[in-house]
Amino acid sequence: MIRVGIVGFGTIGKRIADAVAAQGDMHVSGVLKVTPDYEALVATAKGFKVYTLPDRVEKFKKAGIEPAGTIEDLIKASDVIIDASPEDVGAENKEKYYSKFDKPVIFQGGEEAEVADVSFNALANYDEARGRRYVRVVSCNTTGITRVLTSLMLNGVGIKKARIFIARRGADPKEHKKGPINDVVPNPATVPSHHGPDVKTVLKNVDIVTMAVAVPVTIMHMHMAYLELDGAYPRDAVLEALAKTPRIFLADVGAGFQSLAQIIEYARDLGRPRGDFPEVAIFRDSVTVNGNELYLMYGVHQESIVVPENVDAVRAVLGAMPKWESIKTTDTTLKLFTEGKRYG
Amino acid sequence: MIRVGIVGFGTIGKRIADAVAAQGDMHVSGVLKVTPDYEALVATAKGFKVYTLPDRVEKFKKAGIEPAGTIEDLIKASDVIIDASPEDVGAENKEKYYSKFDKPVIFQGGEEAEVADVSFNALANYDEARGRRYVRVVSCNTTGITRVLTSLMLNGVGIKKARIFIARRGADPKEHKKGPINDVVPNPATVPSHHGPDVKTVLKNVDIVTMAVAVPVTIMHMHMAYLELDGAYPRDAVLEALAKTPRIFLADVGAGFQSLAQIIEYARDLGRPRGDFPEVAIFRDSVTVNGNELYLMYGVHQESIVVPENVDAVRAVLGAMPKWESIKTTDTTLKLFTEGKRYG
Amino acid sequence: MIRVGIVGFGTIGKRIADAVAAQGDMHVSGVLKVTPDYEALVATAKGFKVYTLPDRVEKFKKAGIEPAGTIEDLIKASDVIIDASPEDVGAENKEKYYSKFDKPVIFQGGEEAEVADVSFNALANYDEARGRRYVRVVSCNTTGITRVLTSLMLNGVGIKKARIFIARRGADPKEHKKGPINDVVPNPATVPSHHGPDVKTVLKNVDIVTMAVAVPVTIMHMHMAYLELDGAYPRDAVLEALAKTPRIFLADVGAGFQSLAQIIEYARDLGRPRGDFPEVAIFRDSVTVNGNELYLMYGVHQESIVVPENVDAVRAVLGAMPKWESIKTTDTTLKLFTEGKRYG
Amino acid sequence: MIRVGIVGFGTIGKRIADAVAAQGDMHVSGVLKVTPDYEALVATAKGFKVYTLPDRVEKFKKAGIEPAGTIEDLIKASDVIIDASPEDVGAENKEKYYSKFDKPVIFQGGEEAEVADVSFNALANYDEARGRRYVRVVSCNTTGITRVLTSLMLNGVGIKKARIFIARRGADPKEHKKGPINDVVPNPATVPSHHGPDVKTVLKNVDIVTMAVAVPVTIMHMHMAYLELDGAYPRDAVLEALAKTPRIFLADVGAGFQSLAQIIEYARDLGRPRGDFPEVAIFRDSVTVNGNELYLMYGVHQESIVVPENVDAVRAVLGAMPKWESIKTTDTTLKLFTEGKRYG
Ligand SMILES: NC(=O)c1ccc[n+]([C@@H]2O[C@H](COP(=O)([O-])OP(=O)(O)OC[C@H]3O[C@@H](n4cnc5c(N)ncnc54)[C@H](O)[C@@H]3O)[C@@H](O)[C@H]2O)c1
Ligand SMILES: NC(=O)c1ccc[n+]([C@@H]2O[C@H](COP(=O)([O-])OP(=O)(O)OC[C@H]3O[C@@H](n4cnc5c(N)ncnc54)[C@H](O)[C@@H]3O)[C@@H](O)[C@H]2O)c1
Ligand SMILES: NC(=O)c1ccc[n+]([C@@H]2O[C@H](COP(=O)([O-])OP(=O)(O)OC[C@H]3O[C@@H](n4cnc5c(N)ncnc54)[C@H](O)[C@@H]3O)[C@@H](O)[C@H]2O)c1
Ligand SMILES: NC(=O)c1ccc[n+]([C@@H]2O[C@H](COP(=O)([O-])OP(=O)(O)OC[C@H]3O[C@@H](n4cnc5c(N)ncnc54)[C@H](O)[C@@H]3O)[C@@H](O)[C@H]2O)c1
Repeated sequence: MIRVGIVGFGTIGKRIADAVAAQGDMHVSGVLKVTPDYEALVATAKGFKVYTLPDRVEKFKKAGIEPAGTIEDLIKASDVIIDASPEDVGAENKEKYYSKFDKPVIFQGGEEAEVADVSFNALANYDEARGRRYVRVVSCNTTGITRVLTSLMLNGVGIKKARIFIARRGADPKEHKKGPINDVVPNPATVPSHHGPDVKTVLKNVDIVTMAVAVPVTIMHMHMAYLELDGAYPRDAVLEALAKTPRIFLADVGAGFQSLAQIIEYARDLGRPRGDFPEVAIFRDSVTVNGNELYLMYGVHQESIVVPENVDAVRAVLGAMPKWESIKTTDTTLKLFTEGKRYG
Repeated sequence: MIRVGIVGFGTIGKRIADAVAAQGDMHVSGVLKVTPDYEALVATAKGFKVYTLPDRVEKFKKAGIEPAGTIEDLIKASDVIIDASPEDVGAENKEKYYSKFDKPVIFQGGEEAEVADVSFNALANYDEARGRRYVRVVSCNTTGITRVLTSLMLNGVGIKKARIFIARRGADPKEHKKGPINDVVPNPATVPSHHGPDVKTVLKNVDIVTMAVAVPVTIMHMHMAYLELDGAYPRDAVLEALAKTPRIFLADVGAGFQSLAQIIEYARDLGRPRGDFPEVAIFRDSVTVNGNELYLMYGVHQESIVVPENVDAVRAVLGAMPKWESIKTTDTTLKLFTEGKRYG
Repeated sequence: MIRVGIVGFGTIGKRIADAVAAQGDMHVSGVLKVTPDYEALVATAKGFKVYTLPDRVEKFKKAGIEPAGTIEDLIKASDVIIDASPEDVGAENKEKYYSKFDKPVIFQGGEEAEVADVSFNALANYDEARGRRYVRVVSCNTTGITRVLTSLMLNGVGIKKARIFIARRGADPKEHKKGPINDVVPNPATVPSHHGPDVKTVLKNVDIVTMAVAVPVTIMHMHMAYLELDGAYPRDAVLEALAKTPRIFLADVGAGFQSLAQIIEYARDLGRPRGDFPEVAIFRDSVTVNGNELYLMYGVHQESIVVPENVDAVRAVLGAMPKWESIKTTDTTLKLFTEGKRYG
Repeated sequence: MIRVGIVGFGTIGKRIADAVAAQGDMHVSGVLKVTPDYEALVATAKGFKVYTLPDRVEKFKKAGIEPAGTIEDLIKASDVIIDASPEDVGAENKEKYYSKFDKPVIFQGGEEAEVADVSFNALANYDEARGRRYVRVVSCNTTGITRVLTSLMLNGVGIKKARIFIARRGADPKEHKKGPINDVVPNPATVPSHHGPDVKTVLKNVDIVTMAVAVPVTIMHMHMAYLELDGAYPRDAVLEALAKTPRIFLADVGAGFQSLAQIIEYARDLGRPRGDFPEVAIFRDSVTVNGNELYLMYGVHQESIVVPENVDAVRAVLGAMPKWESIKTTDTTLKLFTEGKRYG
C-alpha cells in the first residue's frame, strides 16, 4: 500500500483524498487542514487523520479536533505527498518542508512549472514522471486541452495548430466572495493566456495559442477550440478517436445535453460523488470538420478534472504500475466511463 | 411491498424515485417519462421500468428505448401514484387518467390545493392524509416554512404571527432558459405571495404573511423570517426546539457555513446523492430573540426538500406506518441527520 | 458660490461632482483622484481640477495628467469638503488632513457614525446639520429606509415597528472582482444587520430591526418592508404620503415595472445621467395594508440615492438655504420627479 | 427633412428614434408601440407620435394614451420605415403592411437575410443600399465583426481567414425572464453559428467561421477573434487601422478598462444616453500579431451598436448623402468618438 499524504484539503485536496482512498494500492496517510471548519469534520468523519501546521495546533484543539500531528509528521508518515494548497503556497511548502525530506511530491497547476521537474498529464506523458522528485499535475484548463489534443495524436490525427478560446468559470461554487457578477473579464487581456504555454510544458512541440475570459458561472469552464490538422480527416475518424480515449465524454444535444448545466445534472443523476464530472465533456454536435480544420466545444469541470491525474501521478512517480494499467485502474475505481474506451 | 408509480421524472420525480427505491417497504413499479433523453437512460440504468404517454411510444422506440407501457399500464401496476409532472399538468393527469382508477395519488406543490383532499407535511399533519384519495405535498418554500413553524409549536413555543421574506432561486440548475440574470424580480409584487396562504392549507390557524422576490441563483431559496411568539422564550429554548426536530439543520458561520453555497458544499462533501440537502438549513447565528420576537434565516433546497415528505405521504395515505416511525425510517434510509433528533 | 472640494472620485464621488456642478449656488473647486485612470480623464474633460495625494503626483505626471495640487491644496481652495473615499479611509483622511483645517467636512455612510457630529438625511433631519464641523450622509440602504419612514411620519402615519429585509446587490457594476456568483450570502448572519442601528443615528426613536443577504446582482438593492403602524390607516392615505414625498417614486407593474431592471431601464429612457435612479422606487402593487400592518417592496439604487443628500448636506451645514428650499432646488436641478411633490 | 417612421419601440427601436431625432436632415414621423407601458409614456414625453396596431387602439385609449393612428397611417406619414419589431415579426409586417405601399423599409438583424434585397453595414457596403426597396441592418454581433474586418481591409490589411469565438450576453438588461443563470450554453452547439454566414451577406468573399456560447450577463457580448492575414503586418499598422476607423474604440487596461463593465462605466461617465456604447470596444492589450496571425478581444454593446447603422441606412437607401458624409454626420450628432477618425 502506497501511503499518500495530502497537504491542503480544499476543492482539489478533498477530492484527491476520496479518490486515493478508493484505490486498492493506496492509503491516505493523512490530510493537512489549516482551518478547523466543516471540511475538517468531514475529513474526520471519513476516517482521514487530520494534520495541521505547527501554529494551528491550538486552534484545532479549541475547536475540539485533536490533530494527528504537524505537516512534518504527515510527511514522515507518507511515501508520497500530494500538495493541493492554494496557488504559490505549494512552492513555499516545498522550500519550508518538502526540501528537508527525500520523498516525492506532486504539486497542482496553481504552481509555476518551475516548482517541479516535470509537468504531468496521464494520457500524454505518464512515463516522464517516473523517479522524479517533484511532479506538477497541470491545471484544469490545461488538462482539458491536453487530453483533447492527445486523444487525436494518439490516434494518428496530426495537429498543426491549436487555437483555443476559453470562457472560464469566475469562481468555484463555494467561493462566495469572488466575482464577476454581471461582467465578462479578459483573463488576461493579453494573448496568449497562460494556458497555451502551460500545455507546452507537457506537449512540448504543439503550436498552441489560447485566449481566456472569465464569466459569472461556477459550474464549469467552456472551451471553443479551433484546430488545424495535418490533413483532411473524416469527421467520423475524429469522433472515434475522441470516443475511445479515456476521460473524454461525448454529449449529444438530442439526448438533452444542451448546456454545461446538463452535464453536471447527468453526473448528479449518475450518483457521482459531489456531482463531479472528471471527463472532458465534448458537445458531439460541435465537432465539425472543414477541410483540414477541426472545431469543437467542450466543458471542463474545474473541481474534478485533475483528480484522476493525481492518482496516476502517484503511481507514475513511484513506478508502481505501467501507464495504461494505472489509467484503467483509476477510471474503474472512480467509476468513470470505461465502456468503449481503449486502454493501451 | 408498496408498489409506487412515479409520473414525471424531472427534478422532483427522479429524486422521489431514488428515495422510494431506498425504502425497505416500497418498490418503484415504474416511472413515466415524456422525453427519451439522458434522464430516461439513467432511469433505465437504475433498473426503473420506463413508461410513457400513449403518443410518445414511437418517439421512445426510435430513440432505442422500449417503453414498459403507457401511463395507464403504470397506474395498474402500482398501489399508489406519485405525480411529479410540471405545474398544472398534475390536475390534467387527474382528470384524464387518475380519475378512472381507484388508487391514491400524491401530487406536488405546483398544483392548486384544490387538486387534493388534503395538503401534506409529514411533521405537521401526517395523520390527516390517512385514507385520502388525493394528497398534495406542499411546495418547497411552503415545506420549509411549515417545518420551522411546526418545530416550534411541537415544542411548546406558540406563534402569534409569522412574517416571512423570501429570496427565491430564479431557476433550477438544469433550467438554462430561465432568468433573471442581473435583476431582482418581485414574485409577485403583490402581498402576500402564495406561500403564506399555502402554509395555511396545512397549518390552518397560523397568522402568516409572506413576500417573495426572485434572484439570479440556482442553488437554494433563502428565507428571512420574523416571528412574533406568544411570550418571551430564551434563545436556547428555541435553538433546542429546532435542533431536536427532524429535517432541520443548524449551520454555524464559525464552522464555515457563510452562505448557501457552503450548505450545498457540505452536502457534496458528505457524499449525499446529487449534493442534495433535504433539511431546512438554518443559520444558527441568525437565530435571535428580541422580547417576544424571533428572527432567523434559512436556506431551502428546492430540488430535494419535498423528497422525504413524498415518501412519508405514501405511508400516511395507506396507513402503512405511524407518523414518527415513518419519518424516522425515511430519514434513516435517506441518510439525513438523525443524531439528537426526537422522533415522537 | 460655495466652493465644494470632493475627495474620492469613484462611484459616489463622481456623481456628487456632477450634481454639485449642476447647482446654481455651488462650484466644484476640485476633485481628488488617487489613480490616473479613465475616470481621471473624464474629470478633466468635464473641467474639474484634479488633485491627488502627495505620493501620487509623479504617477499622474507620468500618465500625462498634471495635477492641480495635493489634497491640502484642495482643502484650502474649498469652503466645504465632501469625502467620498472608500470605507474607513474617510476617518483616516480626517485625522491626517481635515483636522488641520477649520472647514466643514461631509463623510459618506461607509464611515462609522462616530466620524461625525451628526448623521444626515435631508428629509429627516436637515436642520441638525447646521453649523456642524463633521456631517455623515448615511449609506444607500439607510437612506432608502429613512426616506420611506420619514415620508409616513411627516404625513401623520405613526410607526410602531419597522422590520426590514434586504436583498443587497453584491457589487457595483464596475467592481468585477466582487461576488457572489451563484450564491445568497447572509450579510451578516447575525441580526440586526448594521442598517437598523444606522437608521437610528438619524431617526433616534424608531423601533427598527433589519436583516440582509447579498445576491448576485449589480443593479439595485431590494427591500421587503414590514411596518407596524400606530393605527389602521387606509391604503390610499399611505400611498398619498409616499406619492407626495420628494425622492420617492411609485412604480406600477401594469405600466411595465416588473422588476428592478425596469426601473433602471426607465431611468435610461428618461435620459438620466448614467441611468441613475436617486429616488426610492416603490412597487405600488406591493403597498399593502393589513389592519395596522403595512407591507411594501422597493428598490434602492446604491450608486445614486445619496447624491441629492450630499448636495443638501452642503447647504445644511453652511446654513445656506432652508430645508425645503434646498431639497426642491436639488431635485429640480437634478431633474428628479417633482410633479405632485410637496416641498414643505 | 426625411420623415422616418419607426415600427417597434423596444430596445432597438427606442434608440433609433432618439438617434433619428438628433439628425438635422431627419424627423421622426411616429413610432409604433403595441403595449401602453412606460416606454409608451416616454415616447409621448419625448414628443414622438405614438401609433399602434389596429387591434390595440382600445387598449391604448384605456391606458389614457390616444394613439395617433394605426401602422398604415404611420407608413403613409413616412418617407421610410425602420422596422424594429421582434425577430421574425418584421417579415410578417412586410407581408401584411409594407408590401401594400411603395416605401423603402429597413429591417433589423433578427430577420432572415431573405427579407431584404441587401444586408447592410455602413462602413462595408453603404452604396449597395441605394435605391433598394428592402434593406436589412445586420445584427449586433455581425455588425461588430463586419466593422473590425472592414477596418483592416479598408487599410490594406488582407484577411485570409476569420475565426471568431463569441461569449454572448444571455439577455438584454430589461429581459427579466431570460437566462441562463449559472450556465454556459452552446448557442448553438453546431458550427458555424449563424454569425459567420451572416457576415457573408455583407462581406461576400470573407472566409469566416464563428462559434458562440451564451453566458449569464446582460452587459455586452465579448468576442475573441483569430484572424489569418495575407501577410505579416506590424502590430502598429493594425492598431493604426483600428484607431482611425470610425465606430471603433481602443481601450487600455492600464487606463482602467479591465472588463466589459468598465467600458459601460465609461459610457455612463461620459454622459452618453442610456450608458450606450455604439462603438466596437477593442481591448488594445489583446491586439497581438504572431506571424501572419492576428488576435484580438472586443466587446459589442448589443443594445446600441446597430443604431448609427440604421441612421446611415436611411440616407443610403434614399441616396440622401454620400457614404462618408453620412457616417461622419451620424457620428457627430450621436457624439461618438470622432477624434483621429478618418472619414473617407
Ligand atoms: N479549484 C480549481 O478549479 C482548480 C483546478 C485545478 C487545479 N487547481 C489548483 O489546485 C490547487 C488547490 O486549489 P483549490 O481550488 O483546491 O484551493 P482551495 O482554496 O479550495 O484549497 C486549498 C486548501 O489548502 C489549505 N491551505 C492554505 N494554506 C496552506 C498551507 N500553507 N499548507 C497547506 N494547506 C494550506 C486551505 O486551507 C485549503 O483548504 C491550486 O494550485 C490550484 O491552482 C485548482
Ligand atoms: N423544482 C422545484 O424547485 C420544485 C420544488 C417543489 C415542488 N415542485 C413541484 O414539483 C412538480 C414537478 O416539478 P419539477 O421541478 O420536477 O419539474 P420538471 O420539469 O423538472 O419535471 C417534470 C417532468 O414531468 C414530465 N412531464 C411533462 N408532461 C407530463 C405529463 N403530461 N405527464 C407526466 N409527466 C410529464 C417532464 O418531461 C419532466 O420530466 C411541480 O408541481 C413543481 O411545482 C418543484
Ligand atoms: N457604492 C455604493 O453603493 C455606496 C452607496 C452609498 C455610500 N457609499 C459610500 O461612499 C463611499 C465611497 O464609496 P464608493 O462606492 O464611491 O467607492 P469607490 O471605490 O468607487 O470610490 C472611492 C474613490 O476614492 C479613491 N480613494 C482611495 N483612497 C483614497 C484616499 N486615501 N483619499 C481619497 N480618495 C481615495 C479611490 O481611488 C476611488 O476613486 C464609501 O464610504 C461607501 O461606503 C457607497
Ligand atoms: N436587443 C438586441 O440585442 C438586438 C441587437 C441587434 C438587433 N436586434 C434586432 O432588433 C429587432 C428588435 O429587437 P429588440 O431587442 O428591440 O426587441 P424588443 O422586444 O425589445 O422590442 C420589439 C418591440 O416591438 C414591439 N412589437 C411586437 N410586435 C410587434 C408588431 N407586430 N409590430 C410592431 N412592433 C411589434 C414590441 O412591443 C417591442 O416594443 C430584432 O430583429 C432583433 O433581432 C436586437
